[in-house]
Amino acid sequence: MSDLARPLAQFVVSSSYHRLPAAVQHEGKRTFLNWLGCVLGGCHDRSVTLALAVLRELGGQGQALVIGRDVRLDMGSAAFLNATSANVHSYNDTHLKTVCHPTGPVAAAIFAFGERNKTSGADFLTALVAGIEVECRMSLLLTAPPARCPLGLNMTGFTGGFGAAAAVGRLLGLNQGQIVHALGIAATHASGLREGNTVMSGKINSAQAARSGLTAALLAAKGFTSSDTMLEGPTGFAHVFATEPNFSAALDGLGHQYEVLNNMPKPFPCGIVIHPVIDACLRLTKELDAAPEQIERVELVVPSLALELTGIREPRTAFDAQCSLYHLAAVTLLYGKAGLSEMSEKCVHDPTVIKLRRRVLAMADPTVAKDEAKATVFLNDGRAHAAHVLHCRGSRENPMTDAELEDKFREQSIMGLPSREPDELIDQCWEIDRLDDVGRLARLLG
Amino acid sequence: MSDLARPLAQFVVSSSYHRLPAAVQHEGKRTFLNWLGCVLGGCHDRSVTLALAVLRELGGQGQALVIGRDVRLDMGSAAFLNATSANVHSYNDTHLKTVCHPTGPVAAAIFAFGERNKTSGADFLTALVAGIEVECRMSLLLTAPPARCPLGLNMTGFTGGFGAAAAVGRLLGLNQGQIVHALGIAATHASGLREGNTVMSGKINSAQAARSGLTAALLAAKGFTSSDTMLEGPTGFAHVFATEPNFSAALDGLGHQYEVLNNMPKPFPCGIVIHPVIDACLRLTKELDAAPEQIERVELVVPSLALELTGIREPRTAFDAQCSLYHLAAVTLLYGKAGLSEMSEKCVHDPTVIKLRRRVLAMADPTVAKDEAKATVFLNDGRAHAAHVLHCRGSRENPMTDAELEDKFREQSIMGLPSREPDELIDQCWEIDRLDDVGRLARLLG
Repeated sequence: MSDLARPLAQFVVSSSYHRLPAAVQHEGKRTFLNWLGCVLGGCHDRSVTLALAVLRELGGQGQALVIGRDVRLDMGSAAFLNATSANVHSYNDTHLKTVCHPTGPVAAAIFAFGERNKTSGADFLTALVAGIEVECRMSLLLTAPPARCPLGLNMTGFTGGFGAAAAVGRLLGLNQGQIVHALGIAATHASGLREGNTVMSGKINSAQAARSGLTAALLAAKGFTSSDTMLEGPTGFAHVFATEPNFSAALDGLGHQYEVLNNMPKPFPCGIVIHPVIDACLRLTKELDAAPEQIERVELVVPSLALELTGIREPRTAFDAQCSLYHLAAVTLLYGKAGLSEMSEKCVHDPTVIKLRRRVLAMADPTVAKDEAKATVFLNDGRAHAAHVLHCRGSRENPMTDAELEDKFREQSIMGLPSREPDELIDQCWEIDRLDDVGRLARLLG
Repeated sequence: MSDLARPLAQFVVSSSYHRLPAAVQHEGKRTFLNWLGCVLGGCHDRSVTLALAVLRELGGQGQALVIGRDVRLDMGSAAFLNATSANVHSYNDTHLKTVCHPTGPVAAAIFAFGERNKTSGADFLTALVAGIEVECRMSLLLTAPPARCPLGLNMTGFTGGFGAAAAVGRLLGLNQGQIVHALGIAATHASGLREGNTVMSGKINSAQAARSGLTAALLAAKGFTSSDTMLEGPTGFAHVFATEPNFSAALDGLGHQYEVLNNMPKPFPCGIVIHPVIDACLRLTKELDAAPEQIERVELVVPSLALELTGIREPRTAFDAQCSLYHLAAVTLLYGKAGLSEMSEKCVHDPTVIKLRRRVLAMADPTVAKDEAKATVFLNDGRAHAAHVLHCRGSRENPMTDAELEDKFREQSIMGLPSREPDELIDQCWEIDRLDDVGRLARLLG
């Protein structure tokens, strides 16, 4: 049996802020800023309102802020709701190798825990990076070839609990054995199906992971036990959910190579596999000088996964639109951008959008890379314009800049907290490692 | 795509106490009595004490009783803890076709909900039977041939949330569409690994199912949505967790044949697959007139599943003992019984037990049925005694009688609530369909 939980736990226990490379520290701040913006952008969605109504009834009171909603509930409920908000617009972040969105469950769990427990900003960032690392590596375990797992597993749901448990465990000062127990408890509560990605229930997978992971760490801290073999054993996590789970990919370079550096904030509020298409269409809009009715058809060439995950032909809701490369290609060509307003219910039902959307064709090409796409616009007069994007915005080769992240944050912040000055929040995020208590940031938020 | 969620939801919506066959009504009472006894028997275990410490901190207050602990928390936390207690001794109940333990998550969810909402006893039993039905049928979906699913899925964890969601949904008066949403939300939170069966984390799979299912129904009641395809879709529950999921087995006879009639309270506090061995050893003790040291060896012939699930050779803890057919064979031959005291830590480490346990051999025979076993004792003087059990106690052909259930309840009740008269509680369980408010029963319990 391969050893997995123990080296992961040892990594968590021995992590410290000052030993993190500067680039990793900075990426930790970037992904936190990005997460907080996504929470603010999504916090008034109806899915959050409804979940809040239930958790107000079930949860404890006064421990941690439900961001943007001016209420404090218990840490678990606050983590659940903030993780839900962050997920509303599919605008979060993506670990490119595994298509999981690692920051959500981890940040939600430790932001709630941190407010309650007066965690310092440096400890917070250390735990955030450690949790993201564990979550990404558990995702590699299931997906790095030769490992295969069912397409229907919502990766963030299934591995986010490990990240949250590791991060909260680090903040609780658990020892290696206790972290092993926390990871084991998280394993037995791992869940999440991709089938619901375009409905409200799809927005609470990382939420459940956040709460389960937090609870797992709190249980382990009290002395609640699990076994050493929950991750690796014959009826444990790795072998139940994957064929040929890749233990090497999960452990190679641990403590030296940081997966947060392979995790990218999203420049567009939709499934990451659509981003190359958007980028290709953006290029076309720059050279195209034609009214929508002059477009005869649009042809896209995309990686197979893009069609499998985001092939919704006729989106009916805003959530559907996040998984429709047809919609995104059409709105980008029409409006020269693919932001939150292009994902609205109104835009989904706009006759102009519908008309062009129906003239978009997409073909899967297995030789096309994940961050690559080709788009060709054929006009009625016989002309054609083509664009080929090799590395789209938001890819490892072409990440969002800090300034772009700030712009994204401002747009989202105004939606969530119109009365608050976004730049003050942005400054706090860049300087979070100087905070003696992350609760101060929570109090700035409500 | 097969239709699954809608017919299940329709069954739940149209269920009513007075249309249940008398045998089903009675079995509902039996399984509730059995569940309540198991909660009382397990409620002082250290696993419950530790989980209670965490949920006291996270949970809301005053809604529903944590049985035997003299505290009321929110419905979700109470359901979680009572389901944990019921699981402590592996003494609960088993749906023989699927080896799930269906009553735990359902009863825990609706007992907490019922106290909070003054549910009548007849409604309570209707919801209990409906929830057990849905849970067992979702288990058949994954396990009835040709369906296959990983051995490591803890079946109660994976399908208990559907049962709890259906039962609470029935009590909330949800319509068919809302129940479909509740089942869909439960699907995306289904979890549980068998790897932890002999550690504390293995005791909180049905607990998580109870809370997730309850929450799913409460969310659906508020208008939180899921999709129609969470159970049946290509990336939904059935196809993610099973190969060739058996939709017919899940639906055939729904509303006419009740799976609660195939669900059996356990006569012995251990894995059900060990029960035939215990029964065979009990028979041997009646004819055997030999001191332990005269036993040269014991040979068992068991179904393959028994060795796979309960083949722990050297148990170290009370939880291990629940999954050790070697331990159970030894103690039954030594003491003529296999009750709670034979499962204690003390008994596990008793030198006399260890000595005999090491002389027990077990062979798997694929022609041996689930409820069948052969045991042969070879004595030092060359004599041998053999017993062959075709249908063990607690099997469909040989169920526990009502009187035996009452005796089991008395033993457990005294462990959990020594100051309370067990027979008063037993009477209340038999007459629960006359209660206008199941909260009355909760108040009798603390």
